Amino acid sequence: MSECLLRSGWRGRPDDHQQVLHICRKIGLPVRFILTHDAEIALVAGTGTREGVIAISGTGSIVYGRNHQGKAARAGGWGHLLGDEGSGYDIGLRGLRAVVRMADGRQPSTLLIPEILTQISLTSPNQLVKWISKVDKSQIAQLANSVFQAAQAGDLTAQEIINHASRELALSVQTVIQQLALPLSTQIVLNGGVFQNQASFVKSMQDHFLHRKVTLVAQEPAYGAILIAQQLAVSDG
Amino acid sequence: MSECLLRSGWRGRPDDHQQVLHICRKIGLPVRFILTHDAEIALVAGTGTREGVIAISGTGSIVYGRNHQGKAARAGGWGHLLGDEGSGYDIGLRGLRAVVRMADGRQPSTLLIPEILTQISLTSPNQLVKWISKVDKSQIAQLANSVFQAAQAGDLTAQEIINHASRELALSVQTVIQQLALPLSTQIVLNGGVFQNQASFVKSMQDHFLHRKVTLVAQEPAYGAILIAQQLAVSDG
Repeated sequence: MSECLLRSGWRGRPDDHQQVLHICRKIGLPVRFILTHDAEIALVAGTGTREGVIAISGTGSIVYGRNHQGKAARAGGWGHLLGDEGSGYDIGLRGLRAVVRMADGRQPSTLLIPEILTQISLTSPNQLVKWISKVDKSQIAQLANSVFQAAQAGDLTAQEIINHASRELALSVQTVIQQLALPLSTQIVLNGGVFQNQASFVKSMQDHFLHRKVTLVAQEPAYGAILIAQQLAVSDG
Repeated sequence: MSECLLRSGWRGRPDDHQQVLHICRKIGLPVRFILTHDAEIALVAGTGTREGVIAISGTGSIVYGRNHQGKAARAGGWGHLLGDEGSGYDIGLRGLRAVVRMADGRQPSTLLIPEILTQISLTSPNQLVKWISKVDKSQIAQLANSVFQAAQAGDLTAQEIINHASRELALSVQTVIQQLALPLSTQIVLNGGVFQNQASFVKSMQDHFLHRKVTLVAQEPAYGAILIAQQLAVSDG
């Protein structure tokens, strides 16, 4: 018997899950399958089990968890408009917004202006209006690097942006923990470009959960997909 | 001699002004002209002079001022991504973001959920993901109405969104006042859909500037364009 694991962008919302499942059944896939999503396979890649909480911060963000009984919950992951709080996009955009506030004189200028303008080869904040009309979400998310650099150089505005992002992700993790009544032994794993590139961001999440094990996902998410498919095969006997 | 007044979307940024002026001269307009923008004509419509400060809050927002010596300054007006703080879009989007936080359990549910969902005929916050992918900025800005209604019914989250918007606009006004060294006698005028529709928002701006005259623009902005063109005609003799 064959096993198959399907991945989609639906990110754990029940309505979407039902729709994708309906399409899969209509197609009549000739194998057994589990319909899952990138947060779940990264969770399994990070914990080695299907139980735990994962916080992903890349261009977007999401927190997803699953308990011992198989119940799942998520927080965030609503997309860049409704709220990918704590994502690279969120951090980069808040950096840009601080720059234009400084350019107006609405707040004192800091190191954040040269850090961000240098990264994108601009010479004046006024050029940002044209720049932002041409870029995509991932290019805004890449500016998170400049915000982290300014923060590490002691820039208070940049530090506040990073702290806000970290608090938002911690709030989402805490919400998922409460909804699933996860015990203290449950692992929290972190994934996505921002966590992978910024050790200080991993550290700040560890500081939010001093009594829990918080680690970076070391394996590729695809490894989690293989583990789930293996479990499916084993459960088939 | 003919006089002409040109209006554009450049909103007072020097680079854009130079570009539009260059185009106008290249075309070789057969009349005398002043190149201006919607914030300036609304300022003149509101004050009857070219001196003062105008705060506009519609779908977007901007604060613009001009002093006795003809020097101009602006704050905000960077567009919906970089920062139209205090605009209808800003208020509506913050309302939506609060709704999805409540849906996740990241904050306690309030009246804001039924107010916003009812306005756009949805039954669940999950439907917002699809909804927001299809609407334009003005449809998000229209949700400001629901946020004001919830605030007036005592919803603390909605009240905080409105207060934040009002503080942001007041900060922009204060920044322009400082940059132009405007005396206490200088008028502050308000325009745009949010101010025109929400008396409480006008009141909150008046509360921020108790020692200054803060009024809603009563005339159509086009009236300001006529006044400027008239002044140009008079100055020609």
